[in-house]
Amino acid sequence: MKRKDTAIVLASGGLDSCVTVAIANEEYELALLHINYGQRTESRELLAFHEIAAYYNIPGERILIANIDYFRKIGGSSLTDLKIPVQDAETDSKGVPTTYVPFRNTLFLSVAVSWAEVIGAGKVFIGAVAQDSPGYPDCKPLYYEVFNKLIVAGTKPETRVVVETPLIFKTKAEIVTLGFSLKAPLHLSWSCYKNTEKACGVCNSCYLRLKAFKDSGHKDPVKYE
Amino acid sequence: MKRKDTAIVLASGGLDSCVTVAIANEEYELALLHINYGQRTESRELLAFHEIAAYYNIPGERILIANIDYFRKIGGSSLTDLKIPVQDAETDSKGVPTTYVPFRNTLFLSVAVSWAEVIGAGKVFIGAVAQDSPGYPDCKPLYYEVFNKLIVAGTKPETRVVVETPLIFKTKAEIVTLGFSLKAPLHLSWSCYKNTEKACGVCNSCYLRLKAFKDSGHKDPVKYE
Repeated sequence: MKRKDTAIVLASGGLDSCVTVAIANEEYELALLHINYGQRTESRELLAFHEIAAYYNIPGERILIANIDYFRKIGGSSLTDLKIPVQDAETDSKGVPTTYVPFRNTLFLSVAVSWAEVIGAGKVFIGAVAQDSPGYPDCKPLYYEVFNKLIVAGTKPETRVVVETPLIFKTKAEIVTLGFSLKAPLHLSWSCYKNTEKACGVCNSCYLRLKAFKDSGHKDPVKYE
Repeated sequence: MKRKDTAIVLASGGLDSCVTVAIANEEYELALLHINYGQRTESRELLAFHEIAAYYNIPGERILIANIDYFRKIGGSSLTDLKIPVQDAETDSKGVPTTYVPFRNTLFLSVAVSWAEVIGAGKVFIGAVAQDSPGYPDCKPLYYEVFNKLIVAGTKPETRVVVETPLIFKTKAEIVTLGFSLKAPLHLSWSCYKNTEKACGVCNSCYLRLKAFKDSGHKDPVKYE
């Protein structure tokens, strides 16, 4: 039997990446990458990540936790700068929200592609969502098209790594439905930007998650305040 | 008098980035970025970086040291994996050398662009050299063309950041000559991949540096074994 190819999945511990792991698991040997960039709920997200990795029986050599300190140093986002408050949903429906972390996905993908070159993975999966993302410039399809060109230009000639964004054109409700159909461990995922024990239910991330479960006709298994 | 625009310069502490700092200093307010990615001579490079920053009187708020741990974890390069020996010059004249760190410059530029978005810098300078680089795929002009497209696609609409590679078509000898003419502090720069006190003179980086000084008719002010 031919051994499956390896796919690296960027997994924050959130809903979208949890479903992305389930999608990649259908066809590939999984390698999971979590990036600690000093986000305010990192300890909770990391717990969710490890629980999701355990659910899929990922061995230690196919788990990478990358620690990055500079977003905390440079600030500019409410996710990493504790002086900037996290906005509630719909108070900032226009423009780029305060939770935008400048050029963050380029960092994420650069780590993933470096690891892919070393372990010979042919795919990098990221759970970016264009439609429901509140104005993040690095969640748009064009960004990923250009990034795939960058991989060709910037890696060894024999390297073949392609970034896949299976959720990019889906609504959050479709993502929840897909997650249930693939038996993704949605009960282990964590989305809240504010809290670490019970989800707040009011930050933009909770708002979008709750709406997604409601629209898809499912109950969110995570506990709220 | 109009305030100068800010340029972020990626500064390892090496020869090429030292001259790149001198070039950016002609037109821009400098902000210097150093990335510690676990390279084997990091402590010596960081010393060189701080000495170069002091030479140009850069204040603390325009200095960023980013600490990145994952290259050590993933290995794959003799610069970050202490089990892989650093090759001497010309023993590996074909293909990508062992000192290649997979997709490293994408990490460097992603950090720089993130910081540029926060501080409003319009330029990111990197001392990449295509001609004399020993086969590194991310030192080629096409890579930077694509990266500049990625910035447009992946940052806020109002962000205008452009990556500049003033050395990319120069020979190492031309870089040394330019460094002397701009009074770059070449005596503070550090290039050796192997040692941290006196340069080894035989690793590929020392070999290229010594040849560059010789070809340009200058004496290298750095001490060798």
